Amino acid sequence: MIPNTNYGKLKDSYLFSEVARRVAEYSKAHPEKEIIKMGIGDVTLPLCTAVVEAMKKAAEDMGKAETFHGYGPEQGYDFLREKIKAYYAENNVELDLNEIFISDGAKSDLGNILDILGKDNTVLIPDPVYPVYVDTNVMDGRNIIYADANESNGFLPMPDEKVKADIIYICSPNNPTVDVYNIEQLKEWVDYATANNSLILFDSAYESFVADKSLPRSIFEVEGAKKCAIEFCSLSKTAGFTGTRCGYTVVSNELVYDGMKLNKLWLRRQTTKFNGVSYIVQKAAEAVFTPEGRKQIAENIMYYRENARIITNTLGEIGIQYYGGINSPYIWLKCPDDMDSWAFFDKLLTTAGVIGTPGAGFGKNGEKYFRLTAFSSKENTQKAMLKFKELFSAK
Amino acid sequence: MIPNTNYGKLKDSYLFSEVARRVAEYSKAHPEKEIIKMGIGDVTLPLCTAVVEAMKKAAEDMGKAETFHGYGPEQGYDFLREKIKAYYAENNVELDLNEIFISDGAKSDLGNILDILGKDNTVLIPDPVYPVYVDTNVMDGRNIIYADANESNGFLPMPDEKVKADIIYICSPNNPTVDVYNIEQLKEWVDYATANNSLILFDSAYESFVADKSLPRSIFEVEGAKKCAIEFCSLSKTAGFTGTRCGYTVVSNELVYDGMKLNKLWLRRQTTKFNGVSYIVQKAAEAVFTPEGRKQIAENIMYYRENARIITNTLGEIGIQYYGGINSPYIWLKCPDDMDSWAFFDKLLTTAGVIGTPGAGFGKNGEKYFRLTAFSSKENTQKAMLKFKELFSAK
Repeated sequence: MIPNTNYGKLKDSYLFSEVARRVAEYSKAHPEKEIIKMGIGDVTLPLCTAVVEAMKKAAEDMGKAETFHGYGPEQGYDFLREKIKAYYAENNVELDLNEIFISDGAKSDLGNILDILGKDNTVLIPDPVYPVYVDTNVMDGRNIIYADANESNGFLPMPDEKVKADIIYICSPNNPTVDVYNIEQLKEWVDYATANNSLILFDSAYESFVADKSLPRSIFEVEGAKKCAIEFCSLSKTAGFTGTRCGYTVVSNELVYDGMKLNKLWLRRQTTKFNGVSYIVQKAAEAVFTPEGRKQIAENIMYYRENARIITNTLGEIGIQYYGGINSPYIWLKCPDDMDSWAFFDKLLTTAGVIGTPGAGFGKNGEKYFRLTAFSSKENTQKAMLKFKELFSAK
Repeated sequence: MIPNTNYGKLKDSYLFSEVARRVAEYSKAHPEKEIIKMGIGDVTLPLCTAVVEAMKKAAEDMGKAETFHGYGPEQGYDFLREKIKAYYAENNVELDLNEIFISDGAKSDLGNILDILGKDNTVLIPDPVYPVYVDTNVMDGRNIIYADANESNGFLPMPDEKVKADIIYICSPNNPTVDVYNIEQLKEWVDYATANNSLILFDSAYESFVADKSLPRSIFEVEGAKKCAIEFCSLSKTAGFTGTRCGYTVVSNELVYDGMKLNKLWLRRQTTKFNGVSYIVQKAAEAVFTPEGRKQIAENIMYYRENARIITNTLGEIGIQYYGGINSPYIWLKCPDDMDSWAFFDKLLTTAGVIGTPGAGFGKNGEKYFRLTAFSSKENTQKAMLKFKELFSAK
């Protein structure tokens, strides 16, 4: 038996594992030191009451024969898909129910979607970017090319007619570079994809943080996108579901490549390799979209926004260049003193006990940059910013 | 963009979808007719109290900052892996914690495991068998060969030195043919795999139904299996988790092919394309392995065993040839009157309102056979058997 030898081409360690390793090593050597986590994009606020109550109710349902749920539809229950359909309709995006697939999170579907795409496609990935896009394609042996995201293009690379790509990743608001494409910019990508028979994989995991009403939360707000884009979304950041696990993927009925309907292929993939998301989790997700749930998660998002404001205020005060914090839960900063990302990571960890994420871990253009998240508690965010002031104000 | 054209080679409809389609068509035409489901292997008893209480407690944990859980380890929480380690130890199988991976069900992992295996391997699959083994390999374009399971070999194909296979699927107790390999027979497969550098994918989803203490519930009860087998298990049938979604996969540290450690590859796959099973679901699964949970699920299994006894008694009485019902929740029967599987399916649906699964849907050797499940309620099982008596006794 020959294993998938493409795995040998993967870099040795996944970014967040390396962060965790260095933190564990430091904590072991200095057990007395307090650590403030502003690295991995994990939330800290508990699930809102509407969600907790829905889960308790669903657990009770599962304990009674009359309301017990066995195998559900692999693509998700209609009660949840209807809510998501209505959520899209608020932004004038009309979806058919069968275009919405419930997942256990965007990470799973972003990886699994590649099952239905050929190995010979050329993939265009922004740099820096969420490492999963690159690694999942290396595992399949696809040819990867990069679109530089840097200060000169406002971290938002635009299509280049000279570059031919079959599969294009777009994350907006972007992770880690925090910027958001506007409608006109996304339209350029849709036009490029249409002209080149390309497919856009659009990651909208951070859509709920878009505060500017003029900016799109979904690529389907752009005309023509249904013919060339798949959208992946998650409740992880929207409703604190990082440990609860629910997301959704929209595969339009209009996506046809080489005579094959991608919606049909994806349905076949999911019915063959997946058995649907837990009933209890889908009931939890449904509660997110109730008026009560919407109100409660909005309060949580406001809390994280306030943390972002505390971070950006401090960085501004001490003269560290930064981006984001308004339409994104992340702050992308330029390492002070021309430090490398990992050097800055080590310095911050060992002198301030603050964990962030080195920009270099997201790609070569991330070198000398650093990502902080607004997902800590307010108290810890304030503490961390005091440390920043102590460490960097003198400069 | 070119889709994965292997999807074009899949047969048009997944077995259970076709069953569902025919049932829906019949129900629409005859809304007044009662339907008794003994087709898809879905359980009917509600989750046991220990599990329900654990989920309610976990939901409350998630609603409080002090006990909230964000991202968990992709490979599962240690509290659950420890329980599974102890469960294996009862059968004298010693596992390291890092060899146990928590999944959202055996179906997901049986599909996803193929990510880490090369496309050029030849795959040996029993016929008839759970259709997912075949379809997932067709999707990857692997060469598939079949091992005939039929009356002449007691539905348990044995290795043939003349046949060279790199990947071998074994399901024991088998689905749909209900038979269980004994230790000596499994040892022959392990010896074959060792001699041929093959990998066995062992599906033990029905292990909790093995009543005969002399039969193995895990391939790791066989010496040498850790060097050549991956085992997939599920709580779906064990504890009624078909809608709750939790299983586990054992990838031993001793599996090395072409110098690559499969445990490391699978960990990399899971950390890149998966974000772990919901905390609430893992707490539910943990409760299955408590003394209280064990006692409660044993009662449920006894209930289904009694249904199996009702079915086999009736079939025996009316002279329909059958297999199983003792170490398996399924009964595999020979269609009366030399009927084809789908003809028998249609006859049973339209005259008795009973749904079963046509053997032909599991492979060519399943033609003229039929699968019934013991997972209905006792009342419905009795009703269905009365219909069988009416329909077939006269013959």
